[in-house]
Amino acid sequence: MNEAKDSLPTHPHMSNDEFRRRAHEVVDWIADYMRDVETHPVLSQCEPGDIRRALPDSPPEKPEPFETIMADFERLIVPGITHWQHPSFFAYFPANGSPASLLAEMLTAALGVNGMMWITSPAATELETHVLDWLRQALNLPEGWQGVIQDTASSASLCALLCAREKITGDSVNQRGFHAQSSDAPLIVYVSDQGHSSIEKGAKIAGFGRENVRKIPSDDEFAMDPAALERAISADREAGFRPAAICATVGTTSSTAIDPLDPIGHIAEKHDVWLHVDAALAGTAAILPEFRWMLDGVERADSFCFNPHKWMLTNFDCCVMFCRDTERLVRTFSITPEYLKTDAAGVIDYRDWGIPLGRRFRALKLWFVIRSYGLEGIRAYLREHIRLAQRFAEWIESDAAFEILAPHPLNTVCFRWIGDGSMDDPELDACNKKLLDDLNRSGKLFLTHTRLKGRFAIRLSIGQTYTTERHVHGAWEQIRSTAAGLRE
Amino acid sequence: MNEAKDSLPTHPHMSNDEFRRRAHEVVDWIADYMRDVETHPVLSQCEPGDIRRALPDSPPEKPEPFETIMADFERLIVPGITHWQHPSFFAYFPANGSPASLLAEMLTAALGVNGMMWITSPAATELETHVLDWLRQALNLPEGWQGVIQDTASSASLCALLCAREKITGDSVNQRGFHAQSSDAPLIVYVSDQGHSSIEKGAKIAGFGRENVRKIPSDDEFAMDPAALERAISADREAGFRPAAICATVGTTSSTAIDPLDPIGHIAEKHDVWLHVDAALAGTAAILPEFRWMLDGVERADSFCFNPHKWMLTNFDCCVMFCRDTERLVRTFSITPEYLKTDAAGVIDYRDWGIPLGRRFRALKLWFVIRSYGLEGIRAYLREHIRLAQRFAEWIESDAAFEILAPHPLNTVCFRWIGDGSMDDPELDACNKKLLDDLNRSGKLFLTHTRLKGRFAIRLSIGQTYTTERHVHGAWEQIRSTAAGLRE
Repeated sequence: MNEAKDSLPTHPHMSNDEFRRRAHEVVDWIADYMRDVETHPVLSQCEPGDIRRALPDSPPEKPEPFETIMADFERLIVPGITHWQHPSFFAYFPANGSPASLLAEMLTAALGVNGMMWITSPAATELETHVLDWLRQALNLPEGWQGVIQDTASSASLCALLCAREKITGDSVNQRGFHAQSSDAPLIVYVSDQGHSSIEKGAKIAGFGRENVRKIPSDDEFAMDPAALERAISADREAGFRPAAICATVGTTSSTAIDPLDPIGHIAEKHDVWLHVDAALAGTAAILPEFRWMLDGVERADSFCFNPHKWMLTNFDCCVMFCRDTERLVRTFSITPEYLKTDAAGVIDYRDWGIPLGRRFRALKLWFVIRSYGLEGIRAYLREHIRLAQRFAEWIESDAAFEILAPHPLNTVCFRWIGDGSMDDPELDACNKKLLDDLNRSGKLFLTHTRLKGRFAIRLSIGQTYTTERHVHGAWEQIRSTAAGLRE
Repeated sequence: MNEAKDSLPTHPHMSNDEFRRRAHEVVDWIADYMRDVETHPVLSQCEPGDIRRALPDSPPEKPEPFETIMADFERLIVPGITHWQHPSFFAYFPANGSPASLLAEMLTAALGVNGMMWITSPAATELETHVLDWLRQALNLPEGWQGVIQDTASSASLCALLCAREKITGDSVNQRGFHAQSSDAPLIVYVSDQGHSSIEKGAKIAGFGRENVRKIPSDDEFAMDPAALERAISADREAGFRPAAICATVGTTSSTAIDPLDPIGHIAEKHDVWLHVDAALAGTAAILPEFRWMLDGVERADSFCFNPHKWMLTNFDCCVMFCRDTERLVRTFSITPEYLKTDAAGVIDYRDWGIPLGRRFRALKLWFVIRSYGLEGIRAYLREHIRLAQRFAEWIESDAAFEILAPHPLNTVCFRWIGDGSMDDPELDACNKKLLDDLNRSGKLFLTHTRLKGRFAIRLSIGQTYTTERHVHGAWEQIRSTAAGLRE
């Protein structure tokens, strides 16, 4: 046998010293970016194909120096970024972050662990269990509920729908397949007409079929009408269909409407239907005692999710899902081949709590965020955003050329320009679409739209970490002055 | 209307200066960690509950200083880490990384974009399309195939199974649900008895049912036997069942066996069955001309995935999936609510190419890695790992107290201790389990096991970025000396 020797450097890893130097440079770039982010247009001003045209058709054979790559990053990539960390990003819901979360992300990347099982990094598993219990307490969710981190609310809602499917079929779709079902009665999913598209997507994936998603009418405030839900379930039962899952939304994407969990929970209980609560954005605000009412009745739900990556200062991606009966989750997802068997007893292997086997160590950023801000700091941040949204709504209401289109209990205001009130809805839709496009093209702010009662509505959502009154007021000034141009 | 003013600092964000300082400190911690990682036991020496016991039961109300959090990270979390970046991590398959990838992860976290659609960051979408085309070229996959990044191979394989389900049912499970199927013939999935557990998990989730997963026998080299596949499909067709998907594995998890894609592809074509190729680990090695034969016949596949986060120097998570017909993927997953409609024409919105709506900007790290190493650098790194694995196998073969249990074409060697040859298999299984436990408890290396032809086999997989001959030889010495203790 030959003597062992260190291999020749046949592959050009960056030395530790060079890595350290480069990482310090990257940190300075990041800190400069955070300081100067307002100098960028919020919405990328690229045209389709701009980025790809600037890149070589084929991959390089030879290594390139880091400074070249970094220079290209600044020159080619940054102009193609829509700056979600810009304080005038008011589009969709934010994907926020914070210094504490970013520092934790750096450590997560450095440790590079796969937290698929307890043994593959006990700290990743136990910290996840622990900080999710902290959040359970902060949200005043029932004792005994346990949490798991999923990537996004889409995945969490899909997991909930799969659990609902297996519960109502006695685990037999999982086991025997959908063709072996003794009943050909469709399984029905209920969600309000304002619910998120991920429920329909989940119903496709889980095999319910999108035709079997009942869009329950919402009331004047865009919240699910429990009486309409009850009627729909009763009608389906009479028709021989099988009500399988209700998805209630706390904070809809269009207008942050809040479905009433208490009556919905009673209906779910009465009909023994899985109740999932999608609180992707608004769940974070339930940490505020004055907003905990949004979750009244949640104790009758089977599953619940919210996204700290939206409004809890935590970098994308990080969705927290809680379940009343996590055994159901494990039965739905577990598979244990020989190469994943361990002797560890009484531990959680989170690979059995969701779709992917491999899992990033996302709990670390939650721990850093909760400790860096404390619940008090998180509450102060949420209250400030809610205050700013209410202020923005006051400005809209004080101007006769605009109108509010939906209640705005939280951080999101839906409105439209109405000019002198002489136009009909189709004309107003066209004008407001033009207004939105002009605003976004300015690069000074980024807003998106929705439709409410058929009307084109502009949404302004305040959740970006560094948004202050200056930015919200600047948005309002920009909206007013741009709208003034519409009359010409 | 009141004047706008900057809000009072009601929430304690870290200042830009403090962030910069802390980030420099974290970089030094990371560089030190990378330099000193060998001083840690590879497998965490924690007992279940150790981490949670050290943490306060309730979340803090008040902010805590960053130095306290960082000190707790070092004191409480690091001892609970199983060090996947330790060069003596030989367990499972690695989750590797590299300086270039880590630097890109820092930038990805700082930009904090959600690349769900082209408009939400054109550079995130176009760079993904572009670097995946680079990889398509590097792997010599057919022109016209397009790629998308998924988190893990589990998710990619699930996506493939969902596409297969929709193809064979004419999009009707998605649309009408599984109860509306006109046929009650089960849809069948084929995978070798060595295939990954994620296929069975995917078959549960997609509603095929685990009973309808046929585990096709493998040959003496643990590769799928195409004749057995043909027989199984024919028998199922005769029985009136509907063969829906074949999953071929290039580089099985147990022993890196390579299913023969060419004959399997012909069978898939003949029976019009979706063919998915799971090359999670070994796909990277197809960048080597001398290993491209592993993919011979892949042009008849419908989908293909491999994990740069396993063996292409790219931080976890990053799975690359290619499809022959991406329209099928989009039909399976797309949903477009009003609040996600845009005017951008002729662009890719990757939210329609997989399960989650939100998506991290993972393409950046692939771009950094491919450019930093060049294909030449990646090839040199792969060849070195393969050389080391072959060397390790020679050492095993040269010692009569050990035997090799499977072919080892790539980076993974399965073996067992056999002592003087007098023990039967159950006795050897117990001895090898004890050997494995003793080795892992030493903290000097981390190995995992599998079963091959019923026998307990120890696996040594070389893929960690900084593994050199010194580490592999050290592992061998440790294995030999620990095994010597078994005889006493």
